[in-house]
Amino acid sequence: MNRHPDYLLNEVDEPEDIKGMTLDELKRLANEMRQLVLERDAAIGGHVGPNLGVMELTLAYHYVFNSPHDKIIWDVSHQCYAHKMLTGRKLAFLDPDHYKDISGFTSPAESNHDFFEIGHTSTSISLAVGMAQARDLLNPDSKDNVVAVIGDGSLSGGLAFEGLNNAAKLKSNLIIVVNDNQMSIDENQGGLYQGLKELRETDGASPNNIFKFMGLDYRYVKDGNDLRAMIDAFKEIKDIDHPIVLHVNTLKGKGYEPAIKEKMTYHWRMPFDLKTGKDKHPFTGESYSDAILAELDRQIAAGEPVVAMNAAIPGAFNLKRFQAKHSDRYYDVGIAEQDCISSAVAMAVAGARPVVFQNATLLQRAYDQLVHDMALNDAPVVMIVRGGTIATESATHQGSFDISMISDLPNIEYLAPTNVEELLSMLKWAIKQTDQPVVIREPEKPLIHGEATQEDYSNIKYNIAHHGSEVAIMAVGDFWELGKKVCEELKRKINIDATLINPKSLTGIDPQVLHHLSENHDVVVTLEDGNLSGGFGETIDRYYGPTPMKVLNFGAPREFADNVPLEVLYEWYHLTPKQIVDDIEKVVHSL
Amino acid sequence: MNRHPDYLLNEVDEPEDIKGMTLDELKRLANEMRQLVLERDAAIGGHVGPNLGVMELTLAYHYVFNSPHDKIIWDVSHQCYAHKMLTGRKLAFLDPDHYKDISGFTSPAESNHDFFEIGHTSTSISLAVGMAQARDLLNPDSKDNVVAVIGDGSLSGGLAFEGLNNAAKLKSNLIIVVNDNQMSIDENQGGLYQGLKELRETDGASPNNIFKFMGLDYRYVKDGNDLRAMIDAFKEIKDIDHPIVLHVNTLKGKGYEPAIKEKMTYHWRMPFDLKTGKDKHPFTGESYSDAILAELDRQIAAGEPVVAMNAAIPGAFNLKRFQAKHSDRYYDVGIAEQDCISSAVAMAVAGARPVVFQNATLLQRAYDQLVHDMALNDAPVVMIVRGGTIATESATHQGSFDISMISDLPNIEYLAPTNVEELLSMLKWAIKQTDQPVVIREPEKPLIHGEATQEDYSNIKYNIAHHGSEVAIMAVGDFWELGKKVCEELKRKINIDATLINPKSLTGIDPQVLHHLSENHDVVVTLEDGNLSGGFGETIDRYYGPTPMKVLNFGAPREFADNVPLEVLYEWYHLTPKQIVDDIEKVVHSL
Repeated sequence: MNRHPDYLLNEVDEPEDIKGMTLDELKRLANEMRQLVLERDAAIGGHVGPNLGVMELTLAYHYVFNSPHDKIIWDVSHQCYAHKMLTGRKLAFLDPDHYKDISGFTSPAESNHDFFEIGHTSTSISLAVGMAQARDLLNPDSKDNVVAVIGDGSLSGGLAFEGLNNAAKLKSNLIIVVNDNQMSIDENQGGLYQGLKELRETDGASPNNIFKFMGLDYRYVKDGNDLRAMIDAFKEIKDIDHPIVLHVNTLKGKGYEPAIKEKMTYHWRMPFDLKTGKDKHPFTGESYSDAILAELDRQIAAGEPVVAMNAAIPGAFNLKRFQAKHSDRYYDVGIAEQDCISSAVAMAVAGARPVVFQNATLLQRAYDQLVHDMALNDAPVVMIVRGGTIATESATHQGSFDISMISDLPNIEYLAPTNVEELLSMLKWAIKQTDQPVVIREPEKPLIHGEATQEDYSNIKYNIAHHGSEVAIMAVGDFWELGKKVCEELKRKINIDATLINPKSLTGIDPQVLHHLSENHDVVVTLEDGNLSGGFGETIDRYYGPTPMKVLNFGAPREFADNVPLEVLYEWYHLTPKQIVDDIEKVVHSL
Repeated sequence: MNRHPDYLLNEVDEPEDIKGMTLDELKRLANEMRQLVLERDAAIGGHVGPNLGVMELTLAYHYVFNSPHDKIIWDVSHQCYAHKMLTGRKLAFLDPDHYKDISGFTSPAESNHDFFEIGHTSTSISLAVGMAQARDLLNPDSKDNVVAVIGDGSLSGGLAFEGLNNAAKLKSNLIIVVNDNQMSIDENQGGLYQGLKELRETDGASPNNIFKFMGLDYRYVKDGNDLRAMIDAFKEIKDIDHPIVLHVNTLKGKGYEPAIKEKMTYHWRMPFDLKTGKDKHPFTGESYSDAILAELDRQIAAGEPVVAMNAAIPGAFNLKRFQAKHSDRYYDVGIAEQDCISSAVAMAVAGARPVVFQNATLLQRAYDQLVHDMALNDAPVVMIVRGGTIATESATHQGSFDISMISDLPNIEYLAPTNVEELLSMLKWAIKQTDQPVVIREPEKPLIHGEATQEDYSNIKYNIAHHGSEVAIMAVGDFWELGKKVCEELKRKINIDATLINPKSLTGIDPQVLHHLSENHDVVVTLEDGNLSGGFGETIDRYYGPTPMKVLNFGAPREFADNVPLEVLYEWYHLTPKQIVDDIEKVVHSL
């Protein structure tokens, strides 16, 4: 039910509907929309600070421009909530029953005011340049504006710079709004921010101006949360006939004190109590991340030249705790995933022991650095990767391509521990050895204890946890518990005493165990929490290809899934113990 | 035999040996080394212009600094020939019998004066920052300098910008030499070069300075080919206690008129005649690239909104010819591979028909744009990819990871034509359809004619070129001719009349044909000109995993190969018809 039937926003179905409003009405709208962002984020989680900061910018845009003829491209698009409210999707903020009708990012499937699915940073300028080029080719007389909105944090990503460089070549309309809130996901990192500060402090007048250096026109708005100022600024540059940067100073978290004080906490939040600001479902158990950090403490105490590196996401790994203890060994390069890997490679080659923390979906941005820098130079970088799993998340952040991305490359060992003791054993070995890059896939499921059955992983020895016959289950990493359940179900349903194997690695195979299995098994089953294409299972398929062994692979198909509940995904992908056993049964019966 | 026993260079075994030389002797050395670059490049091919331009810079570096205690990192490292001559590898330039003793890039395996295998651009600053950070952690009292040398062309790559941004945070020695020769591989592209031009024109005095904007110290050298000036500049900044940019103006091709006049032609050359400047083995036959461009001409004439896009490598696809005819439809974004894909995605979404030309090894630099921009948005970009093959090349440029990189992603169709007619049929369909991204793998082997057996590739229909029994050979793309030879050899040696199949696609499978094969075949063999891990063969392995069909995959293992002759690689990888048939025979006999 609509919780705010009295809101002015109820009268807005299209951006057109705000064009006749007075400044006071627009300001009222801004306040309403701030309240709605807070209510929805508190209830289901979401981006807080980025949205609170751009209410005026968004209102001014839709007041001045004519969407969707004029086209706006939101960088990362996590700040698009106000845009969604003004473009036909207000109910998803007014009515809790409809909160989940929409995604947290722009989505062409939802509205013709959205042009791309976007969730990674730094792409907006290149996308806008492409839109402008297509406009000029297909409809040379068009007066449509193309507008990119990019945060100062996203500017440090190399792609944004590539986009600026090529934007300067355009000879037609393009507006790049630099939304400068003096924050990345975390604190901004790097020299760029010194220059931006000087521009803010001189009201945009400093002669040293990176945008002008690149041949771009430039204007500055001192208070981007001043609705009048934003409307005036947009009116002035609407229909401009060349590329221009509009540098806008805004306040991240504007209108909600806790979000202003704790900008990093409120960048993105799980459900929280609006009054106390506390997490609704605080995590209190043991975590793999904490176990990893404790091990790094021990390694450093023992004299290992360990350093921890990340690219703007310390929160995902609790790295602020590491930084507090070891500030001289902590590197956050900001949103600069490529730089993170390349500099880690150099540190490893020069004798330090870098441990890189990265999310699978963001590691995609450094694929060439994995290939050309890390693998080619066989640099002993240690990396912890999270989120390379089948998960309920936005398709923009689907991380399940990681096995193909990492394990198909030469020289890299990609390990998948099944419990915390195994993970720490792998980490210790990874830090000790200097022969090759080692990537460890941090499990996403709740922490379990178990044992490590190997100390030196330079030759992977599959662990046969249970010796059975007929069917062998190879359950990798996070799917270890699933493997156990499949074994139980096989026993119960068709009385097969299956062998259960922990392969430990997504790259290496253990030919001895694989060969040995042929003696008293007819079927090998692989279970992997990731995409099947290019994955672990196919490595086993290839090994057994020329032999009589039957192999069945379970994992995710080659597709994107957008915010699908995990249990639904598992059903879709035939990943419940019952479904898996049904499939195995068919093969066993065909023998 | 040493062709120049009279050269002063013969006296140089280590950089130490030039430290006592007079300026005149050093100048003589520069001239000798220029001559040696030309002789070697003319004989076996290599990078010409980049090396001719940095003789003085390299001599000055080794005269002033103490390699390998001081560490120099060459961006791309294609300009490292003089460095190699001065660091123990002069014979590989003096003596034609030893020309091939060394690679064309820095190589730690060759010398302790080299620190990384490098062949892609824009990595040097990040690598240098990592080296400096490791120095400061491991040996806080060290006075060793870390020096990166990066060309102005490489600066447009986003990673270079990420590197500059993080370099500014360093509180210790780091020297970034910007070797500004006013060229990329081709012409520089983008606004950055307007700013650099202003810096050159003001002798570095312009207040608008991107390096200073980012908080970096800065000096300018007007003539980087003036040995005295370079020595003085290096002496001044040696042992500096903070990061500094040394902006050096050099002449690409210096000392050889043809290379100065035709900078792009002489960036990298196949063997050529030193007197006439002409190719020794000019290519005169039909080429796939020309056939593609002719088709684009027809599409444009027919009114299709086709545009051609590339990132600094028009030469690899003859795109200057396209540009000459269709300048308004031609986009070279410079060295900015990520931007190229993102802006192509936007052009496709906005209704244009972008055809992107890219090399497999450089496409690695835009992997996230393939995933997050192109695949996720299902944008109907058309892409032509070259070099995704097993090849005799530097390991830095190994392109054979392309099948895993592209075909394991959702929504993308990766097609592998076997002849020029099939390629054009695929291209026509790719441009006509608007449902999905389509990538076409341009064959690398000499052009062959044949036929297209399909017009609409939205559902891949494997072509059964010959109906046999027992064994089915699936030969993809460039390995089609190999497939034919394997069939002949199978007939000859073990009298098997094998079925021969052209699968056309590296992504999609044709379940009907695969199912049908089970009726009268026991063995399926896949032949792919690329890496097996995550490749086409494994897709077939997975399909047949639960069935009695035996599958054998042929392709490259998960490894790098550096400048290995193709016939040797084929032997290593069991890819000769005889080896393949021997392997098949073993499986057939085991049945």
